[in-house]
Amino acid sequence: MTIDLYSDTQTRPTPGMREAMARAVVGDEQSDSDPTTRALCDRVAALLGQEDGVFMPSGTMCNLVSILVQTRAGDEIVVDDQSHIYNTEAAGSAAIGGVSVKALPTPAGLYTPEAFAAAIRPPARTAPRTALVSIEQTTSFSGGSVWALADMRAIRDIARAHGLKAHIDGARLLNAVAATGIAAKDYAQGFDSVWLDLSKGLGCPVGAVLCGSRDFVVEAWRWKYRLGGAMRQSGVIAAAGLYALDHHVAQLSTDNAHIRLIHDAIADAPGLSFDPSAGQSNILCFGVSGLGVTAPAFAEACLAHDVRIRAIGSQIRVTTHLDVDRAGAERAAEVIRATAEAFAERRAAPVR
Amino acid sequence: MTIDLYSDTQTRPTPGMREAMARAVVGDEQSDSDPTTRALCDRVAALLGQEDGVFMPSGTMCNLVSILVQTRAGDEIVVDDQSHIYNTEAAGSAAIGGVSVKALPTPAGLYTPEAFAAAIRPPARTAPRTALVSIEQTTSFSGGSVWALADMRAIRDIARAHGLKAHIDGARLLNAVAATGIAAKDYAQGFDSVWLDLSKGLGCPVGAVLCGSRDFVVEAWRWKYRLGGAMRQSGVIAAAGLYALDHHVAQLSTDNAHIRLIHDAIADAPGLSFDPSAGQSNILCFGVSGLGVTAPAFAEACLAHDVRIRAIGSQIRVTTHLDVDRAGAERAAEVIRATAEAFAERRAAPVR
Amino acid sequence: MTIDLYSDTQTRPTPGMREAMARAVVGDEQSDSDPTTRALCDRVAALLGQEDGVFMPSGTMCNLVSILVQTRAGDEIVVDDQSHIYNTEAAGSAAIGGVSVKALPTPAGLYTPEAFAAAIRPPARTAPRTALVSIEQTTSFSGGSVWALADMRAIRDIARAHGLKAHIDGARLLNAVAATGIAAKDYAQGFDSVWLDLSKGLGCPVGAVLCGSRDFVVEAWRWKYRLGGAMRQSGVIAAAGLYALDHHVAQLSTDNAHIRLIHDAIADAPGLSFDPSAGQSNILCFGVSGLGVTAPAFAEACLAHDVRIRAIGSQIRVTTHLDVDRAGAERAAEVIRATAEAFAERRAAPVR
Amino acid sequence: MTIDLYSDTQTRPTPGMREAMARAVVGDEQSDSDPTTRALCDRVAALLGQEDGVFMPSGTMCNLVSILVQTRAGDEIVVDDQSHIYNTEAAGSAAIGGVSVKALPTPAGLYTPEAFAAAIRPPARTAPRTALVSIEQTTSFSGGSVWALADMRAIRDIARAHGLKAHIDGARLLNAVAATGIAAKDYAQGFDSVWLDLSKGLGCPVGAVLCGSRDFVVEAWRWKYRLGGAMRQSGVIAAAGLYALDHHVAQLSTDNAHIRLIHDAIADAPGLSFDPSAGQSNILCFGVSGLGVTAPAFAEACLAHDVRIRAIGSQIRVTTHLDVDRAGAERAAEVIRATAEAFAERRAAPVR
Repeated sequence: MTIDLYSDTQTRPTPGMREAMARAVVGDEQSDSDPTTRALCDRVAALLGQEDGVFMPSGTMCNLVSILVQTRAGDEIVVDDQSHIYNTEAAGSAAIGGVSVKALPTPAGLYTPEAFAAAIRPPARTAPRTALVSIEQTTSFSGGSVWALADMRAIRDIARAHGLKAHIDGARLLNAVAATGIAAKDYAQGFDSVWLDLSKGLGCPVGAVLCGSRDFVVEAWRWKYRLGGAMRQSGVIAAAGLYALDHHVAQLSTDNAHIRLIHDAIADAPGLSFDPSAGQSNILCFGVSGLGVTAPAFAEACLAHDVRIRAIGSQIRVTTHLDVDRAGAERAAEVIRATAEAFAERRAAPVR
Repeated sequence: MTIDLYSDTQTRPTPGMREAMARAVVGDEQSDSDPTTRALCDRVAALLGQEDGVFMPSGTMCNLVSILVQTRAGDEIVVDDQSHIYNTEAAGSAAIGGVSVKALPTPAGLYTPEAFAAAIRPPARTAPRTALVSIEQTTSFSGGSVWALADMRAIRDIARAHGLKAHIDGARLLNAVAATGIAAKDYAQGFDSVWLDLSKGLGCPVGAVLCGSRDFVVEAWRWKYRLGGAMRQSGVIAAAGLYALDHHVAQLSTDNAHIRLIHDAIADAPGLSFDPSAGQSNILCFGVSGLGVTAPAFAEACLAHDVRIRAIGSQIRVTTHLDVDRAGAERAAEVIRATAEAFAERRAAPVR
Repeated sequence: MTIDLYSDTQTRPTPGMREAMARAVVGDEQSDSDPTTRALCDRVAALLGQEDGVFMPSGTMCNLVSILVQTRAGDEIVVDDQSHIYNTEAAGSAAIGGVSVKALPTPAGLYTPEAFAAAIRPPARTAPRTALVSIEQTTSFSGGSVWALADMRAIRDIARAHGLKAHIDGARLLNAVAATGIAAKDYAQGFDSVWLDLSKGLGCPVGAVLCGSRDFVVEAWRWKYRLGGAMRQSGVIAAAGLYALDHHVAQLSTDNAHIRLIHDAIADAPGLSFDPSAGQSNILCFGVSGLGVTAPAFAEACLAHDVRIRAIGSQIRVTTHLDVDRAGAERAAEVIRATAEAFAERRAAPVR
Repeated sequence: MTIDLYSDTQTRPTPGMREAMARAVVGDEQSDSDPTTRALCDRVAALLGQEDGVFMPSGTMCNLVSILVQTRAGDEIVVDDQSHIYNTEAAGSAAIGGVSVKALPTPAGLYTPEAFAAAIRPPARTAPRTALVSIEQTTSFSGGSVWALADMRAIRDIARAHGLKAHIDGARLLNAVAATGIAAKDYAQGFDSVWLDLSKGLGCPVGAVLCGSRDFVVEAWRWKYRLGGAMRQSGVIAAAGLYALDHHVAQLSTDNAHIRLIHDAIADAPGLSFDPSAGQSNILCFGVSGLGVTAPAFAEACLAHDVRIRAIGSQIRVTTHLDVDRAGAERAAEVIRATAEAFAERRAAPVR
């Protein structure tokens, strides 16, 4: 069977999770009478140190709604140029919110507080109004880099001093927690909006929870409804989230450890190039141009040996999750290494 | 226990449905590799005689996406003035699609082909461009009225002749099918977009399926993703939809019969006023102004006797569904009748 | 030469106005250093009893900006169903502002305070948020009807009580002033935004002035700039506005008198139908269906006798302005009457 | 009197231009019956080798409408990061068009065809759809750099090969023509939309002309109307444009020469830093950080000697135009040089 390192979104619900879903007590979430959904929102809000939360069908909707509530048409938001918001949300912030995006150049997905401060536009009738800054913890397309708490707080404070809102795209925030031991609420402290994805490392089939102040959640609900994200007996899926918070959080440390294992096993493979910061959480990115092959070609070669990895542009991305155990990680490392060696050998071979 | 006639959205999944969900084979719907979601979409597309379908978290997203795909900013759509699109989607078509709404005056939610034809604006640089017409089958806020097939086809043909798209909000289309015996695909024939809600009479916790041509579904998927409606292992909820199509369709005829039962039992109650067309499917609306009370006051009085009904403006709306059996319907009718009589008596009593 | 009663937008600048434009002292309006534009804005603001004003290239931009500043996406505005905003602004409020329009049915363009009050939606997450009401004084497509001051104030007070903004589309407000003797500032008192068109009865080639509070004008300027309405040495056209306020206001009474003259001369012509309120200002609408001809056919027949009038749907609209003198008005009345008589005769003639 | 080098937008109409405006034959541009506006549009379209043109109140509206017509919500456009579209149009493309902007890093406002090609996103449901590329000839905020014809054509061809639209922001295109001798129509050849500003070097008070195919102009007119840019007897301002094309084009070469004069006179002034490409047209940018002062402080010091220049971020921008003659340019150069020397001296002075 294929070892699937394509993404941590590929996890399938476990038997325990399925049972929890089947047993969920439900009601209509639109009248706040689904007790399971309510319990999940309360729990995540507490975890993130926020006043309230709202259940969403996806993390994309969490980012979108955070922008919609906290900006208005003609405003500008500041993100990193590798971010999910800028690259992989189909321009929703512009298309739906009328918001301009300033994407800071960031080789590793992490920008400095100084770069952020310089990106805030001076007030002018002719310029977009800078309104919100977003931090993606951990970075999705930059190898799962973990933001330093001090940088996050510096950015948050600059935002506050300029009257901007500060947002955390926390799709994999708990992987950062697992990597550093810093509590989620410490990361989120003082931010205006922050969310967790349930369908990534936590292993749920559907959903995310967006948190903020009570007023924020009231307006977030209005947009959730308008976008078509309001469901009915959502407790059947929220139950998976509660189950995951009980049973899958420890797994995130294991996932991080598996990435380190893979990293260490392939770090000196021929032709692979790594960022110095690579391998901090459950994602590992590396280049293969040193082998004279494209990333898709490399990925295909691994797939021929039942290891599925992802080509993103000119990089390979490997992601661990609960459907990949230690043996799987070891086997994946072997295949990646062997693939690199095979390509390197072929390259070195004299042309006949 | 309260008999809940507030809405057919209040149903809770049955044990059989929960079991089907727990056993669902799943994958990632975003790569079209969730076999259960795929099977549901195929089944609904076949039922509606359309080429393809896409699973959505809500019916509101089905309407919104149909508009977004088939119009552009500055276009106008034609709907009835009681419609869900105009009244209960938080102005999503304008807010997200930039689309103007022409809401035809329709006491019973049904407009004539002639009224539609007259509403199409002549082409002019200064006017909105009429682009799409929507029919709500059955009408939600107008007592579950059933559109005549001939009217739907006449409207569809006028639309086509003017180069407009024709859309069916089929939240309760299967209740119309149950009422008339006309097949869903006959209603949908030649329409450009049409959807079924799973979370109403069909009794699922979450979801709806939007259908149309293959090209339409490609673009609908793009907007579903942008809005944040793309999920992962959605088979866990799609399984409920397949179960409902196997086991709950017959129930819709029962629901319709229960409404007729209630209608006949209260038709001559003092002070209640009914539209001549009232009681055609699983919804019954009536006025209570003849009793000198407001609709919320009337609803509250019924709730005191454990019958929950809904006040919408100056009307009462009663909706049957699979969590209300014949005894429940009979009991509800008794309570409504007795409440009307009590108010009538109080009104007639001499002021002391 | 043709007597042009098509619209009061067709006026050409007079020699005096051209001379004023040629002599205008100018600067850059974007830095508020065009003294002529500044003087015009101040003068109109004083006339309307508002704090400040901004010069705009068109009345359409005045309506649009008033909506953009005072609403946000997903809000709803209330207008009459004959209004310029609803029918002749290419759905700009939806396309650009994301705003839904509730168009009140109004045979003569005037709705009642009660109808407005009933149109305000109760707050609900699922409904558009009613945010602004607009009054068109005088009505453009309903025969130049003049709103009663008492009705305007009642509507304004209801708006205020519900936290809504109240707007006047004052394209022809000065024609109402001429008709009733009520001062413009009395009509505008307590409204949040109000504007005058310079290019209609006032006879300027280009422009309108939008007024409101100082804060409103700051935001209006931001949108004017974003829409592309910010000009440079706009004093060359603003000068025409100042000239018109000095020399063309009295003409509006004459225009109104000419409409009454035409009305009285054709009121009993065969086959023409008039609203009882017809002829209040400088516009006269009438139906020609009693003659068995379409409005375009009737207009064409008049044009053959060098009188240009406008067909709008099934109605004829006649508009007087400073390029039409008393003799022209008399001649137009003769032609219209004779045309009606000719059609009536033809209709009565036995079919051979 | 102050020598104003702040911007070429500051020009005032000459007596000859004013006379041409006063004599203009006019009609209603909305029915295409203003002969002067028609003549101007035809003339600019011919100059640019395009099928048709539309008169606009501003260059900002030309850029905005070009984007609105040629993209739809959720698309992405590619521009340089110093561009007017990205920085100085109040995010109109996002706010009104729902369009995402990819701003290519370009120290001098000129990006390479390779950088553009790399910025085109591969088609994906999750990504914005790259739809249009814009070139600003000459660059406004990067010192009036002139795009090489070969680069423009390479970019145009890449756009075409990917099905994208190619647009020229030609606010100062005629300054490039004056600098290189390449015809405007050669620059514009094969581009889908291109415009000239009349209110910059050409010295008109108001307006710009946007050109493209006949179909493009039909849709551009629709958006012009919706935005509120449709005027009436616009011939009074279009006349200035025709006059300028007859009498002010030669001046652009003079303006360019004045910039070279200033550049050569200050190039070796102490503490000023210039881009190697500086001084190609009628704009000159330089840094003053070598003097230990901010750009606003430097500009203020010059203003004290009656020379007005503009601080943009950390740079000084000097712009020549028809209100600045050779003596003015020489005087400005002296003042700038003397100011630099004074600051340098002060800096070098021992701290007591």
